[in-house]
Amino acid sequence: MNKHNEQFTFTKEDRAYMERALELAARGRGATSPNPMVGALIVKRGRVIAEGWHRQAGAPHAEIEAIRSAQEPLEGATLYVTLEPCCHFGKTPPCTQEIIKHKFERVVVAARDPNPLVSGKGIEELRAAQIRVEVGLCELEARRQNEFFFTYHEKKRPFIISKWAMTLDGKIATETGHSRWITNEMSRAYAHELRAQVDAVMVGVGTVLMDNPLLTVRLEGYSGRQPLRIIVDGNLRIPSRAKCLTKASPGSVIICTSSASSRDKRHELEKAGHRVLVFPGRGLLDFHEVMAEFHKLGIQSILCEGGSSLTGALFEAQLVDKVVAFVAPKIVGGKNAKIPIAGWGVLHMDRALSLSDVSIRSFGSDVCIEGYIAPQEWSKTGTENHGDSSAELTPVTALKDLAPNSQNSTGGSNA
Amino acid sequence: MNKHNEQFTFTKEDRAYMERALELAARGRGATSPNPMVGALIVKRGRVIAEGWHRQAGAPHAEIEAIRSAQEPLEGATLYVTLEPCCHFGKTPPCTQEIIKHKFERVVVAARDPNPLVSGKGIEELRAAQIRVEVGLCELEARRQNEFFFTYHEKKRPFIISKWAMTLDGKIATETGHSRWITNEMSRAYAHELRAQVDAVMVGVGTVLMDNPLLTVRLEGYSGRQPLRIIVDGNLRIPSRAKCLTKASPGSVIICTSSASSRDKRHELEKAGHRVLVFPGRGLLDFHEVMAEFHKLGIQSILCEGGSSLTGALFEAQLVDKVVAFVAPKIVGGKNAKIPIAGWGVLHMDRALSLSDVSIRSFGSDVCIEGYIAPQEWSKTGTENHGDSSAELTPVTALKDLAPNSQNSTGGSNA
Repeated sequence: MNKHNEQFTFTKEDRAYMERALELAARGRGATSPNPMVGALIVKRGRVIAEGWHRQAGAPHAEIEAIRSAQEPLEGATLYVTLEPCCHFGKTPPCTQEIIKHKFERVVVAARDPNPLVSGKGIEELRAAQIRVEVGLCELEARRQNEFFFTYHEKKRPFIISKWAMTLDGKIATETGHSRWITNEMSRAYAHELRAQVDAVMVGVGTVLMDNPLLTVRLEGYSGRQPLRIIVDGNLRIPSRAKCLTKASPGSVIICTSSASSRDKRHELEKAGHRVLVFPGRGLLDFHEVMAEFHKLGIQSILCEGGSSLTGALFEAQLVDKVVAFVAPKIVGGKNAKIPIAGWGVLHMDRALSLSDVSIRSFGSDVCIEGYIAPQEWSKTGTENHGDSSAELTPVTALKDLAPNSQNSTGGSNA
Repeated sequence: MNKHNEQFTFTKEDRAYMERALELAARGRGATSPNPMVGALIVKRGRVIAEGWHRQAGAPHAEIEAIRSAQEPLEGATLYVTLEPCCHFGKTPPCTQEIIKHKFERVVVAARDPNPLVSGKGIEELRAAQIRVEVGLCELEARRQNEFFFTYHEKKRPFIISKWAMTLDGKIATETGHSRWITNEMSRAYAHELRAQVDAVMVGVGTVLMDNPLLTVRLEGYSGRQPLRIIVDGNLRIPSRAKCLTKASPGSVIICTSSASSRDKRHELEKAGHRVLVFPGRGLLDFHEVMAEFHKLGIQSILCEGGSSLTGALFEAQLVDKVVAFVAPKIVGGKNAKIPIAGWGVLHMDRALSLSDVSIRSFGSDVCIEGYIAPQEWSKTGTENHGDSSAELTPVTALKDLAPNSQNSTGGSNA
């Protein structure tokens, strides 16, 4: 039963066809944004007669690709498609009309389109034309495949990945802030692949001051688009000569600052061609406001590369969807060495955020651990849920004031 | 060429036989201490005619086991043995005499015995009896297999494993010290297996006060020996009711304290049946002295389970041979949450200790990363090498005073 209370029974064959459609969809990875990846498959009399996928933004949708590649009449065929067919004129005409025109008998859809321009209307239109439409096959997989797109439309904010690289003793830099390099080249190449997949890379100004990063995708042979670079800098401490602001670093820069920052500095940055977003406050930003603004700008995904304070602020605001942590077999020690997350924390291990759908990769002797923070995890931490849409903003509370002091609760345990 | 400047040429068959002998040796794991694991194989006319291994301390040596199990005369045969045959009367008579008596033609030895009672003398004795003795085949593997034994005899101190379990953001406990549980049951079972393999488990008194651990091996069906428990407690803050001091926790306890601690408390602990070792100093111990004392007591291996200060002190003293770190996919945050290593640290990432022979295991979604600290790694950290034997003690220097400040050396790098 899907969340629209419709219940459909799918066969093993149905599932196999949809899994194939998901594979086809994945071929568009990195090229379709702001559109989702979509795959489609046409089956007639138990035989796959056409396949298609959305190759890139502006190109035909997956359904159209499949329909065009078919060598025989489609009347009575079944269409498997990973996302609800569109019913509006965008850069291309509505897919629903094409499907109706070709007299498909049945359309199987993995997930409804979260885009309010479509959501459910595409399905209604097909049904109104007497086509049997079944929804929800491989829905989770389809939503995961387009997690940026779904989060963007449903939560009205970008999907946020928090990424860090740490030593085996949990440090992202030494006491002096030095951090190059913690991981090996293979890990770093993967980190650049992650940059290539998102709309924007975000860092705090502390990281700019310490590491002076370019924040670009630098991969052998890569000529794809460069992500936006977002610098969070409440007091505009960024030097104009920072590498990420120079021509060496192609692509646009957005600097997020507070209303307390220097107007002269803002004008200077804007004159240099950078976008400056000003949020109310004295240095610290409300990240729900920041994310609502990014939503307006159409940013569907952000890779946050730290440092500790920015990462801590995102956890505090419950705005992290996924964590990607590299662990390198090195030891740096140091009581004051830099840690991945500062500012936010729980007081009792039971209240820790547990990641789900964890995947573990190794790059040589480095390990990369990835996992999702399911929305319900935040309530465990002992803070009220701040909600996820800009409409539900509440003041950010210090977690320390809310979580019980658990110092005396461990006496009964045995290690 | 082995380190005695002897050069032997071994065939592919020789190597295969020695690898088999190493496999046989491994069958004694956990049961032979203070003896090493040893395996032996007898080959005559290209055929394996007998195998043996040292089953447990006090039982016959591997060579004798193999000789006894042979069903034919051994004259002219080759013996493959993972450790130099002994030439002294211990709990059993010398193996060299048995080998000579049976008129072996050739003996292939993986590694010399580091025990000064044997070291090289066994080989000499065989050669004096006209037996061809070849040494050094699979030497590294053989030394690694008995790393506790070799370190104990060669460095005159126990082999030290530093173990911790941390969250994905590098914390071993929350700000309040709460740490139960970070890892899952599978990881914890493996940690108990590690306890079962060492002579002693060691913790600082802070860990006793916070977690009140039993420090025993608790595995389904386990009835083997329990490790010694060592508590490092410079000022004798340990409460007499601590679980590790009670009958619930079988096995002996050694408490290491400084001469500044209360004499009354020492007597109280001794009266309760615990061993108290007193080292000069006011609270802080010199771990080279501590390890020299453990050497005298015959402790060949120690699993140090923290906390941060004790682990930091061992790194400061360059006394860590191996690291075993569990990483669980949980996030706790907290600027003041507990970290694996406090007190010691390097200032520049290039000076970090890099682990070698890294192995990565996963236990569900936990990861366990293990690796060795090669002796030459310590010189990278910027401190003088303190040496490893008790004869080479130098005062422990604060690393911070020695390592150069590297704050300004990162300007040229690109991330």
